[in-house]
Amino acid sequence: MYAEIITIGDEILIGQIVDTNSAWMAQQLNEIGIKVKQISSVSDDKQHILDALDEARKRADIILITGGLGPTKDDITKHTLAEYFKSELVLNEEALANVERIFARFNRPVTEVNRKQAELPSNCIVIQNPQGTAPAMHFIDNGKHFFSMPGVPFEMKSIMETSVLPYLKQNFIGNTVIHENILTVGIGESFLASEIEDIENDLPKHIKLAYLPKLGQVRLRLTASYDKEYDSNEILSFKNRIAERASKHVVALEDISFEEAILKLLISKNKTVSTAESCTGGYIGHLFTSIAGSSKAYEGGAISYSYDLKKSMLGVQQHTLDTYGAVSQETVEEMAKGAINHFNTDYSIACSGIAGPSGGTEDKPVGTVWIAVATENRVVSKKFVFGNLRLQNIERTAIQALYMLFRVIKEE
Amino acid sequence: MYAEIITIGDEILIGQIVDTNSAWMAQQLNEIGIKVKQISSVSDDKQHILDALDEARKRADIILITGGLGPTKDDITKHTLAEYFKSELVLNEEALANVERIFARFNRPVTEVNRKQAELPSNCIVIQNPQGTAPAMHFIDNGKHFFSMPGVPFEMKSIMETSVLPYLKQNFIGNTVIHENILTVGIGESFLASEIEDIENDLPKHIKLAYLPKLGQVRLRLTASYDKEYDSNEILSFKNRIAERASKHVVALEDISFEEAILKLLISKNKTVSTAESCTGGYIGHLFTSIAGSSKAYEGGAISYSYDLKKSMLGVQQHTLDTYGAVSQETVEEMAKGAINHFNTDYSIACSGIAGPSGGTEDKPVGTVWIAVATENRVVSKKFVFGNLRLQNIERTAIQALYMLFRVIKEE
Repeated sequence: MYAEIITIGDEILIGQIVDTNSAWMAQQLNEIGIKVKQISSVSDDKQHILDALDEARKRADIILITGGLGPTKDDITKHTLAEYFKSELVLNEEALANVERIFARFNRPVTEVNRKQAELPSNCIVIQNPQGTAPAMHFIDNGKHFFSMPGVPFEMKSIMETSVLPYLKQNFIGNTVIHENILTVGIGESFLASEIEDIENDLPKHIKLAYLPKLGQVRLRLTASYDKEYDSNEILSFKNRIAERASKHVVALEDISFEEAILKLLISKNKTVSTAESCTGGYIGHLFTSIAGSSKAYEGGAISYSYDLKKSMLGVQQHTLDTYGAVSQETVEEMAKGAINHFNTDYSIACSGIAGPSGGTEDKPVGTVWIAVATENRVVSKKFVFGNLRLQNIERTAIQALYMLFRVIKEE
Repeated sequence: MYAEIITIGDEILIGQIVDTNSAWMAQQLNEIGIKVKQISSVSDDKQHILDALDEARKRADIILITGGLGPTKDDITKHTLAEYFKSELVLNEEALANVERIFARFNRPVTEVNRKQAELPSNCIVIQNPQGTAPAMHFIDNGKHFFSMPGVPFEMKSIMETSVLPYLKQNFIGNTVIHENILTVGIGESFLASEIEDIENDLPKHIKLAYLPKLGQVRLRLTASYDKEYDSNEILSFKNRIAERASKHVVALEDISFEEAILKLLISKNKTVSTAESCTGGYIGHLFTSIAGSSKAYEGGAISYSYDLKKSMLGVQQHTLDTYGAVSQETVEEMAKGAINHFNTDYSIACSGIAGPSGGTEDKPVGTVWIAVATENRVVSKKFVFGNLRLQNIERTAIQALYMLFRVIKEE
C-alpha cells in the first residue's frame, strides 16, 4: 500500500518556502502503516499537474495533494482536478455556509471571489475545512484515492487529522503498527547509539529503532509492525531495556515535548515554576505556555532584557552588575533567587548570555550563557559556551535550562 | 532553461527530516535566473532513482541530485549513476587524498569502506568536497547536465557555492532576476488582491507578482526577469504604486520580518518598547529578541500569566480583576499602563486572552483576546475573537499586537 504526496505551488519551486507539509504528512502516513513512495513539488501549471497526477497513480494507490487552492491562485488545483476527473463545478451549500461563517466572524462581506470557493467538482466527496474557506476534496477513481487539501499548514493538518487519516485508517488496513517513544536530553546521537548498541542488535526484524535528533534532544522511536496477532509486551520489553540503560538522560516515555514532560512532572507534584529570562527573551515562557493547561504549573516571569529590569523586576543588585556583568554566575543566581522571591514559585529558571552574532568579548565570547535554577533553599548554576548562531543559542539555552530544572526536580 | 531537483533518501519519505536543501537550492537557482520545474523526493531504491532521472531529463536541462551518498547509504546514488551513464567505478586519487586528510584531522584510520568513497564513475567530472568525504559528480549526457551532491546541508551548500553555481552562471547565462518586497499586515490576501488588481493587470509579462501569506501578514514579491539590459526603475515604479495603494497596511518595503521592521522604526526614532504578556506567554518578547540588536529598542517585560503576577509586576488592581476578569478591556489597559510605568519605556504592548483549547465561557469564548498599546499619554485597546487553536491564537495575537503598536507609532 503506497501513497504519494504532490505539493502544488511556485512558492516551493522558487525556494520561498520550505515544504514542511510533506514531512508532516509522510510522518502521519507512516504512523498508520502507509508508506510514501514519492513526494513531488510541481508548479501552478495545469499540464504539469495533470502529468504529475498520471505519474503518481502509476506508483501509488493514495495520492495526497496540497496547495494551489484559494482565490489568488485562481484555484488552479480545483479546476485541474475537475478536468482530470471530467467533472463540473457545482455550488456546495455547506461549504458556502462555512465561508459565510468565517467572514461573519471577521465582520467582512462575502465577495463573489470567495463565493466561488464553495463551487466544487460534482463527483468529489467534499471535506469541509473547519479552519479556512477552501474545502478539501476526495476523488475515487478506479480504486485510486485522491485527496486535495489547502496548503496552509494548520488547515491541512486539521483536515488530515479530522478526516483523511481516520478514513485511511479505516479503509486501508495495513499491518498493525505500534510506536513507543523515549525522549532523551543531554546526550549526542552517536554516544547514545553506542551506549545501546547491543540492545539495538537484539531487535527482531519487525521492530525498528529510529533516532530523531533535535537541538539538544534525541527522540528514540521504536516501531513494531505486525501482520497478524501480536504481543504488545514485546516492544515494551525493548523500550524498558533502553530506558533503563539511558536512564540518566530519559525525560519522557511518551510522545510529548520536553516542556510538556516538565509541566506534567510539576503538576503531578503540585509545584510551580517561574522564569527570569534575559538572552532567551521570553522563549522559555513561550515553550511552557504553548502547552494547554500550562497555567497549572507555570506562573509567568520576567523578560529582563535591560539592566534596569534585572534590578527592578528581580532585585539584582547594581553592585553585582557592575562587578561581574550581566552574563555572570552572580547575576544569574540573583535573577533565579529574585524570581523565587518575587513570583512566589517553588522553582525558577534564570538565563543570561550573549546570543550574538555580536556583543562578545575575549572573556565572554558570543555563545557564552549562564543558567541558574533555584528553589526556596538552593540555587544551582552552570556556564555554557555555545556557537555564534543567535537562534540556535536561544534554543540551546532553553533546552539546557529545562534540563537543569528537570534534574533539580528529580533530585528533590 | 529549466532545472530539476531530486532528493534521494528514505528519511524524507518517512517524514524524519524536512527537506530544507531543495528550498535553498531552488532559491539559489532562481537568483541566477534558472527556473526549477519540479522537486522530487524518491526512495533509496535503484529502479526508482533510474525512473526519476528519466522523467526529470524530459522536463529539464539541469538535474541536481542530493543524498544517497556515503557508507551507511551503500552509496546507492553513485552506483545507480554509474549504471545510468554506463560507466565503471575507478579510484580518484584526489578524492582519496581528501578522505585521508579528513580522517587524519580526527585522528582516525581510513577504513576500506571510506576508501571506497573515492571510487567514482570514470565518465564523470569529479567535484571535490571540501567539507566531507563524499565527492560530488557532474555528468554531461546529450546536452543534459546532472550534478550529484551529498545530502548533508553544509556539504551540499559548500559544493553549490564553490562549484555548481559558478559553473551554471558561466555556462547557462540566464536572465537577470530582480526581486522587490512589500510586507503588509492586517489585510487578507483576497482583499489585497482586489485592491491592487488594476496595478497587477498593468504588469508587463516579465514582471510577476507573488502573494506570500502568513498568519495575519501577506508579503508581496515582485520578480522582474530581463534577458538583456534593463532599467531597474521599471520594477520600482510598480512597487511604489502598490505600496501607495496599500499604504494603510504596508509595514516594510524590504525583505525583513514584521518584528524587525518595528524594531528598525523604533530605533530610528530612538524610542523603546516593553511587553506585558498574558496569553502570548513570552512569544512577543521572543519575536523581538530573535532579532540581533533588539536590545536597542526592546527593554523586556512581564510574562504575567497568573493573577498574582498581573498585580505584582504590573500593578493591575484586584478590584479590576474581580469585576471585569483577566480577559477584559479594563485589565489589559491597566497592564499596558503598568508596563509604561514600571518598565519606563515609550511604548508598551499588553495582551490577555483565552488561548484555548479550553477555558472559554459563553461571554468569552476560546479565542477571545484583548490587546492594548500604551504610551505615556494614551492607551488604545481592541478586542479580537480568533479561533480555537492555541498556537494560532498566540501567533495571531502577537501579530495584531505588533500591528496596533505599529499604527500607534506611525500616528505619533
